[in-house]
Amino acid sequence: MKKIINDPANFVRDTMEGIAFAYAGKVALIDGDVRLLRSTYPRKKGKVGIVTAGGSGHLPLFLGYVGQGLVDGCVVGNVFASPSAAKIEQMIRACDFGGGVLCLYGNYGGDRMNFTLACDSVEFDGIVTHQILVKDDIASAPIDQKEKRRGVAGLVYAYKIAGAAAERMYDIERVVEITQSALQNIRTIGVATAPCIIPNIGSPSFVVEDNQIEIGMGIHGEPGINTSTMMTADELANLLLDKLLDDMPVSSGNTVSVMINGLGSTPLEEQFIFYRAVYMRLKSMGIRIHMPHIGEFATSMEMAGLSLTLFQLDDELKSLLDAPACSPFYTNYNK
Amino acid sequence: MKKIINDPANFVRDTMEGIAFAYAGKVALIDGDVRLLRSTYPRKKGKVGIVTAGGSGHLPLFLGYVGQGLVDGCVVGNVFASPSAAKIEQMIRACDFGGGVLCLYGNYGGDRMNFTLACDSVEFDGIVTHQILVKDDIASAPIDQKEKRRGVAGLVYAYKIAGAAAERMYDIERVVEITQSALQNIRTIGVATAPCIIPNIGSPSFVVEDNQIEIGMGIHGEPGINTSTMMTADELANLLLDKLLDDMPVSSGNTVSVMINGLGSTPLEEQFIFYRAVYMRLKSMGIRIHMPHIGEFATSMEMAGLSLTLFQLDDELKSLLDAPACSPFYTNYNK
Repeated sequence: MKKIINDPANFVRDTMEGIAFAYAGKVALIDGDVRLLRSTYPRKKGKVGIVTAGGSGHLPLFLGYVGQGLVDGCVVGNVFASPSAAKIEQMIRACDFGGGVLCLYGNYGGDRMNFTLACDSVEFDGIVTHQILVKDDIASAPIDQKEKRRGVAGLVYAYKIAGAAAERMYDIERVVEITQSALQNIRTIGVATAPCIIPNIGSPSFVVEDNQIEIGMGIHGEPGINTSTMMTADELANLLLDKLLDDMPVSSGNTVSVMINGLGSTPLEEQFIFYRAVYMRLKSMGIRIHMPHIGEFATSMEMAGLSLTLFQLDDELKSLLDAPACSPFYTNYNK
Repeated sequence: MKKIINDPANFVRDTMEGIAFAYAGKVALIDGDVRLLRSTYPRKKGKVGIVTAGGSGHLPLFLGYVGQGLVDGCVVGNVFASPSAAKIEQMIRACDFGGGVLCLYGNYGGDRMNFTLACDSVEFDGIVTHQILVKDDIASAPIDQKEKRRGVAGLVYAYKIAGAAAERMYDIERVVEITQSALQNIRTIGVATAPCIIPNIGSPSFVVEDNQIEIGMGIHGEPGINTSTMMTADELANLLLDKLLDDMPVSSGNTVSVMINGLGSTPLEEQFIFYRAVYMRLKSMGIRIHMPHIGEFATSMEMAGLSLTLFQLDDELKSLLDAPACSPFYTNYNK
């Protein structure tokens, strides 16, 4: 295993300290706890707090979006593992600015259980919480079981919309409603060409054969919907678009934001080659693209492959997507 | 070869079209030529134009820095190959705003030859040009032959400083002088843990054995100064810092900017773990870090490993580094 790390047992600590050192003044660990990262910009009293959480190993997800107009605090667990309910509770309390706290996270069993416990605890102290689970991965369950779907790169759009709504001082009911309406319009599908290695395991957790790709693989290596032989970028873009558009029809004249998300070791060149194919297909269908996001947004360490997200926009969602935002890993340069 | 591409012969075209589609309105191809990318923001008459060039396969280098407060135009060649003199000449003409044009690029034979031919041509038409070659890679030649050194990630700092100086409407002599003074203070060394594959070759151009790393490897796979067994992030950081500080002594009380540059497939987690070690060592020496840059700045497609750059700052350089800048791949969020 060739990773530029120290003791694998310190992987999360070393990563989090690196981030805290690099962005001191923008983000901070709560009481030096390497599992708890919060934003430090001055918040107005009554702003809805937004808390997220998830396993480590997905940078920039989850903690890269701790910043202005995005997420107020993030709790991380071990690699690919949920953080504890106690830590989540601590973060919810730290992100209560008097307007309630929105817990916004991916639909995974451990996170769901621990957020629910944490929300129950803080409720005794009068902190209003709402939970919204992101379920954008269309490959993880069929449409008639969409409540079972996992959350992947669509989380980033959810953070952006919720964060912008909170920054406008909307009340928590409105932030929840807008975020839920955004999530109705967000779909993702991924493809893996090579696995990643969990540091304290030391070997790949799955295999993708030479000249094979795994369509629909999850960001923890969850099996995809089928294995296919390698194809061209254009073919792959069309295949993934077919699946997304089948799940969420988009019509000529509609506007979408497109996210091309490198899973960790996919060169930017390949991401732009793939984007070109997506752009040409959508253009031929009369669909407009607004503010494409291309790069690494939700990775699995050094996994190879990418995911494609479509986010169908109306005027309100477009304006929230355009709203100012900045964090260590997100700026909306391209609005 | 598992790359998400189409015909390898179209690798550069497809990449450049993807970029032009994604950032339409910010950057544009000159006359639709996929080798010529320029910025589209309104420039003041008399601003020094800044042109760079280099081979493809290094995104975000070179063309990701085409933007405000950075580089005005970029010419790309085939993967790892210099673009032609004719294309460079065309870009110099397009970036002449009446204040002369600074040609700022890495010290490679092909680029040097072609820029020199191009500068000679435009001179006949009264366009003043200056050439500055970036030579920051300390592993590519010993200090007594530093004119032979190659340019690597330090290019990004050079773009930032020159771009900010030009944006302040300094005349070309002053932009040149400041950029050269910056380059005196910039040193880089890299380490590769795995090679990359050139698309139209289809197999790795060099081998790094299991559990081995190549210290000082260039961004085209040029051999390093020695092969070593894999070590921890802390050990590696100290080894690379020793080499950099030996080449450019930095004293207690001084301020540096630090760039940790992933070579293509190095997870962000590893980059932050490495940054943590650099931070702790420099802190223990009484050296302050200003505006660290951590991420992918100058890659070799899917090569694994990273480079470390130190940029020693004085007040003027610090102020230029802090100045506003934005391009598809650079914002100075972290100033």
